[in-house]
Amino acid sequence: MRGHLCTASRVDTECETDSDSETMRCISCKEYYSRCDAGTCKECYEEASDTEEELKREIEDLKAKVAFLRFWSPLDLHITHRSPAGPCFTDVVLIASSDDGLIGTPSVPVPAHKAVLVSRSPVFKAMLENEMEESRSGTIKISDVSYDALRSFVNYLYTAEACLDEQMACDLLVLAEKYEVKHLKAYCEKFLVSKLNWDNSVMSYAFAHQHNAKHMLETALSLITDNMDKLTKRKEYIELVEEDPRLVVEIYEAYLSKQVNTAAHKDSSSMKP
Amino acid sequence: MRGHLCTASRVDTECETDSDSETMRCISCKEYYSRCDAGTCKECYEEASDTEEELKREIEDLKAKVAFLRFWSPLDLHITHRSPAGPCFTDVVLIASSDDGLIGTPSVPVPAHKAVLVSRSPVFKAMLENEMEESRSGTIKISDVSYDALRSFVNYLYTAEACLDEQMACDLLVLAEKYEVKHLKAYCEKFLVSKLNWDNSVMSYAFAHQHNAKHMLETALSLITDNMDKLTKRKEYIELVEEDPRLVVEIYEAYLSKQVNTAAHKDSSSMKP
Repeated sequence: MRGHLCTASRVDTECETDSDSETMRCISCKEYYSRCDAGTCKECYEEASDTEEELKREIEDLKAKVAFLRFWSPLDLHITHRSPAGPCFTDVVLIASSDDGLIGTPSVPVPAHKAVLVSRSPVFKAMLENEMEESRSGTIKISDVSYDALRSFVNYLYTAEACLDEQMACDLLVLAEKYEVKHLKAYCEKFLVSKLNWDNSVMSYAFAHQHNAKHMLETALSLITDNMDKLTKRKEYIELVEEDPRLVVEIYEAYLSKQVNTAAHKDSSSMKP
Repeated sequence: MRGHLCTASRVDTECETDSDSETMRCISCKEYYSRCDAGTCKECYEEASDTEEELKREIEDLKAKVAFLRFWSPLDLHITHRSPAGPCFTDVVLIASSDDGLIGTPSVPVPAHKAVLVSRSPVFKAMLENEMEESRSGTIKISDVSYDALRSFVNYLYTAEACLDEQMACDLLVLAEKYEVKHLKAYCEKFLVSKLNWDNSVMSYAFAHQHNAKHMLETALSLITDNMDKLTKRKEYIELVEEDPRLVVEIYEAYLSKQVNTAAHKDSSSMKP
């Protein structure tokens, strides 16, 4: 909160600004400010207010459009309808299958529409339009995924919405990468970047590398190279050296390049008086 | 453009504002202004800029969501694909039919997905989920509509987009009303309201009445009651008296109520000194 800066007062009925000769009253926050803290003129304030209103209207319009285009997921309908395949007109099912094919109960099929899958994923498009096995049988097997993740994945294709925790975001990012659903991949990556910290940075770095998540990779790498002194003691680091030493090399290369840049910056700064 | 108001100058290195004692420089438009034209303080300007940035980011996110949820219309696919019913997985066709059933060439069927129709319109939902004739035959006849309007209607259900002129907006509003597609109805109504003028006001009023377009009705009515002196000479007015005199009564009632309100307002104003 800005304090009152009035030191003297003078009556000035023409202006709506405060009558003190050195302070004015902000149209927006109604606080007094001195000339040093002056922001905009009235005209620009009014323009900015109009712009804000316009942007808010545009947001409302877009939200209505999203609500209209958002599909009822056959999974929602599941709850309210009698039979999964009947009134939803689904024409394909997806089944989560683990590679071992031994452990666990058989997965519940997730019903869907070919038209929706084809519309959201170039991989499903190629699969279903080219009379492959999946198109003929009406069954798509998705390996190495839990039923919950598959269900969320299909739901996202209909609604552009998902309820994420870190595990689910990783699972969905993997599926999004595999089926080329860019919008979902960006959504998961954004979530994971927001959850990045020193504790999960090495794991996240490796994960981002494996699944081609560029923004997450850069953020994790930057976190790691800022804490190099602590790195080599970490369990995840030792494991990474074992499992994928090339990724460790990339960390050192990034660190080196950062040091060189910082040194160059310092040099050029010290050249100036 | 605001002119320079400088009258004297004083060096004031602490402030970023112009050093003249009576003028400041607007952070936004970089013009000089006097205390009378002061808008916001710097803090509020910065907050407003941040808000604008945030709103713009939200708009970008929503646009990406719309692009993701927007369906490929089977009509778009028509152009790029070999057969309409094949790779699009459409399971229903809509046919424009005129009631007389005699004039004109038979309409080209418009292919669609039951799942999309059901998702966008409660009327299609009831029709297709309840094993009615349309569901069994996979053919929905739409009466009193041109092929072009039907095509645009179906396209809108997939994309939330339509290319409007006044005729098309009227045709689509009628279809939207009939099939309870609220989003499309609002879209057409907004367009038609933007095109309202004295020349089309009586027609628009009657149209809005017939199709329950409340906002359009009010705007047209307000236009008409503002021009009552010219109303009775209009051809459309004379026709409306013939065809639907109750609508004409409503015009007079609205006019009367406006007069009463204006008089009451004048009275209460004249009471004050």
